[in-house]
Amino acid sequence: MHAILASTSTLFGQDYLEYLLPVIPGLFKDLEEILFIPYARPGGITHEEYTSHAAKAFEKIGIKLRGIHEFDDHQLAAREAKGIFTGGGNTFLLVSELYQNKVMPVLREVVLEGTPYMGTSAGTNIAGLSMQTTNDMPIVYPASFKTLGLVPININPHYLDPDPDSKHKGETRETRIKEFHRLNSQPVVGLREGSWLELTDNKVTLKGTLNARIFEKDKVPFEVETGTDLSDLN
Amino acid sequence: MHAILASTSTLFGQDYLEYLLPVIPGLFKDLEEILFIPYARPGGITHEEYTSHAAKAFEKIGIKLRGIHEFDDHQLAAREAKGIFTGGGNTFLLVSELYQNKVMPVLREVVLEGTPYMGTSAGTNIAGLSMQTTNDMPIVYPASFKTLGLVPININPHYLDPDPDSKHKGETRETRIKEFHRLNSQPVVGLREGSWLELTDNKVTLKGTLNARIFEKDKVPFEVETGTDLSDLN
Repeated sequence: MHAILASTSTLFGQDYLEYLLPVIPGLFKDLEEILFIPYARPGGITHEEYTSHAAKAFEKIGIKLRGIHEFDDHQLAAREAKGIFTGGGNTFLLVSELYQNKVMPVLREVVLEGTPYMGTSAGTNIAGLSMQTTNDMPIVYPASFKTLGLVPININPHYLDPDPDSKHKGETRETRIKEFHRLNSQPVVGLREGSWLELTDNKVTLKGTLNARIFEKDKVPFEVETGTDLSDLN
Repeated sequence: MHAILASTSTLFGQDYLEYLLPVIPGLFKDLEEILFIPYARPGGITHEEYTSHAAKAFEKIGIKLRGIHEFDDHQLAAREAKGIFTGGGNTFLLVSELYQNKVMPVLREVVLEGTPYMGTSAGTNIAGLSMQTTNDMPIVYPASFKTLGLVPININPHYLDPDPDSKHKGETRETRIKEFHRLNSQPVVGLREGSWLELTDNKVTLKGTLNARIFEKDKVPFEVETGTDLSDLN
């Protein structure tokens, strides 16, 4: 299994995927074309708009993107793809579409069998056991919250530390994850923007410049440094 | 119909329900005891802990609270209650329990028939047409996202304005609501902390000191002042 699971597509002040461009060619080695899954449609843009936006970034490293919506058979498109990138947006919409188009089981199968996979934000969230640590609004009711389970954990993308100066009384991210753990047992990786998980064979490594925050049921959350092997987290 | 739908239970630097204590007696007129629905369990506290916490605030205005979990038949408890307060916490958990205990339809029925209702945060979110503008994590899979529909709109509690200085690239609340409107058509009221909607007969009025932000499908969001009659929003 080979994957890059990134917290975000875009860092502040940078272009789309800019900070990931140096590592993407190592994942999609020698591939001319990969499949793009635009189901999550950030801000409600169309599949076409989203695909053309993502394609512009991949052009810079000589890889062509083709949107899954361009195929009559989405399942077959996923099965035959040489590499797959799932972009961010709304996770409920992404998961809903993955089930409706029956892509979820195929996607799981091909990535476990070796098709290189990249996700950003919602595309990363679905690599965990469930989408239940998403930050997104439930704008559509998906068939299930269960996701790919490429890693035996859950991921919280765009992890945000509590603001010590805030007077806002809405729950912090940490409180929300604590609530998740009252009903669910898998560890959660809070992945800050600029961090990603690299999956190579059966190894899971934290990459990027920042620490990540690990939440385990009934334990005090802790920080891990970039480069840490997280394979045995669960 | 008589209801107070508050964005939050607690303002910064204040006690639980403190800012609402002056208006609660007007809602639960001459009632000695009301029913408390603690299903949303903030931070994962127990139903008992949550009920005793809320009861302490109501004690100050001479009203006794009884938790719905103390009754064998939750449906009957809702039907026979003289007044009902649903506390905040996780909206997915609240809605899941309301369906599982078959309380959702009864709650709708009795409030429409005149049982005074108060909600804070998640308890306010469920007064709208659906829970799909919640900020909470989907820690449990509810039977449906459909909620009470006491008002023909959706509510976003703890509405938070974008931070102009933020370098975080996660979606703003406004972007999330825009995504909601790509798939759903009802107006959304962004209710800031300290604001509430007052329902009297068929009138919906914005109360508290702050403005609220109104989001309508395909329109530019706009502000409304406290005191505004929002009955005709949809």
